[in-house]
Amino acid sequence: MSELAFIAIDWGTTNRRAYAIASDGAVIQTLRDDKGVLSVAAGSFVGEVAKIRKRLGDVPVLCAGMVGSTRGWVEAPYAQCPAGIDALVERLVWVEPGRTAIIPGVAQLHGRCDVMRGEEVQVLGAVVSGMAPGDALLCQPGTHSKWVRMKHGQIADFRTAMTGEMFALLRNHSLLGDFLKADVVAGPAFQEGLELATDNHLLSDLFGERAAVVLGQRDVDDTASRVSGLLIGSDVRDQVIAAGGTVYILADQALGALYAAAVTATGARPVMLDSHAAFLAGITAIWDTIDGH
Amino acid sequence: MSELAFIAIDWGTTNRRAYAIASDGAVIQTLRDDKGVLSVAAGSFVGEVAKIRKRLGDVPVLCAGMVGSTRGWVEAPYAQCPAGIDALVERLVWVEPGRTAIIPGVAQLHGRCDVMRGEEVQVLGAVVSGMAPGDALLCQPGTHSKWVRMKHGQIADFRTAMTGEMFALLRNHSLLGDFLKADVVAGPAFQEGLELATDNHLLSDLFGERAAVVLGQRDVDDTASRVSGLLIGSDVRDQVIAAGGTVYILADQALGALYAAAVTATGARPVMLDSHAAFLAGITAIWDTIDGH
Repeated sequence: MSELAFIAIDWGTTNRRAYAIASDGAVIQTLRDDKGVLSVAAGSFVGEVAKIRKRLGDVPVLCAGMVGSTRGWVEAPYAQCPAGIDALVERLVWVEPGRTAIIPGVAQLHGRCDVMRGEEVQVLGAVVSGMAPGDALLCQPGTHSKWVRMKHGQIADFRTAMTGEMFALLRNHSLLGDFLKADVVAGPAFQEGLELATDNHLLSDLFGERAAVVLGQRDVDDTASRVSGLLIGSDVRDQVIAAGGTVYILADQALGALYAAAVTATGARPVMLDSHAAFLAGITAIWDTIDGH
Repeated sequence: MSELAFIAIDWGTTNRRAYAIASDGAVIQTLRDDKGVLSVAAGSFVGEVAKIRKRLGDVPVLCAGMVGSTRGWVEAPYAQCPAGIDALVERLVWVEPGRTAIIPGVAQLHGRCDVMRGEEVQVLGAVVSGMAPGDALLCQPGTHSKWVRMKHGQIADFRTAMTGEMFALLRNHSLLGDFLKADVVAGPAFQEGLELATDNHLLSDLFGERAAVVLGQRDVDDTASRVSGLLIGSDVRDQVIAAGGTVYILADQALGALYAAAVTATGARPVMLDSHAAFLAGITAIWDTIDGH
């Protein structure tokens, strides 16, 4: 068995994954729980990391994600685009000197403003591991979907859409809410939603979904898939995807399949990547770049 | 003083206005309160109307608006486009025979589905009174903004956008919520939002508004006006407005001014109409068309 080198924590808003990583990059052990940033009290992060070390081993820890936000452990100032592995390493925030560091997020300040925290490790990992080329368009669907344009192996620019949050807002709080209780599936109703998205009438198409059910013209069980198709279709169509180009998608299988269908509908080619493998490749590349370990 | 002819009630979801109307169309008296449909228990509508008669006079009552929805007194089946005053009169639902009637809403079933309840009285009133021509595009901004195309004095087709509801969802429930507490004003920030709407990137532009404030690039007090401009600008740009054409806006002054600015930004000409006067003209035309009174 390889020697334990460091612990990587992908510490998000609601979930957390910790990996014990060997000097050759192999994952020795993984922990996963729902101790996301929002369920850790201020001042308790040191203790949380100590508990993880007790379980995985007494080695340095690298944390990525919302743990570096104002709601997290400490705020790690963003690196700016264009940003590669080196830029992240330069801006590491050592919360326990030599022992525990937080990886900064990335900000875009030129032109349109945007921010990410955690996704930078995945997209850079996808490129350094060769899963995606150094010049590519990557997509990370989710509550806030990220579209990242890589150039020469660096994050050149990116755009975040509140696609997943919008679906949740509509389902939990809008007049359409009662119509959106069914599961979303990548079937004909979802495809109809994608088609609807080409009209570019999001605000009125959403109202029309309710009217069609009220008027008995459509099955309410199709509405969630249609609205998901409308939102994801709008998200994908808002991006500049070269004709016949490739979009590398980092997502779990269910959401990834929806985005792959939406990308295909635009004439581009979706390629699904393993987001956990990309994260591990990225954080290992960061670890390897840190001096003096 | 003219003789009292009938009582008109504009009975919406959260508010109610009752008008005592003379045989010559003049308004003798007006009542206004917050006894909207949602605050009247099922079975209490008869009593509510009796109370209004006690105050305004013992004459026939015509009700319009959400009082004719499933959440109202009884569900009044929609008239279908194209619909004029005659179509509404044909489908009146007499909840108290010869005494109290509910005016149906209008549904669009050909092509895209859509529904309205209450707005039909306003738009037809605007045309029968000569406030707007018989072939015109009318806009009724609000929680659900209506865009109504009139042809030969009838409602030919229409489109509803959930613009106002979307702003409320974002302010009350989204990650952007804390950034949207300021009042919306039709100033430079609102104009910037209108400009942003021309990009057609609603889902990502919304996220960008938060990022710009987080990165210290923009004053948080501007965000509500910018987001309002982005939403209203998207709403207006989704409509087919002929180049240099006219949009007749039926709204209160504050919201009307925002839509007028958005219409102007597209190169069209806004004309503000008095929505209460339009409602009165419409319901009086309906009254005059009913046989046998």
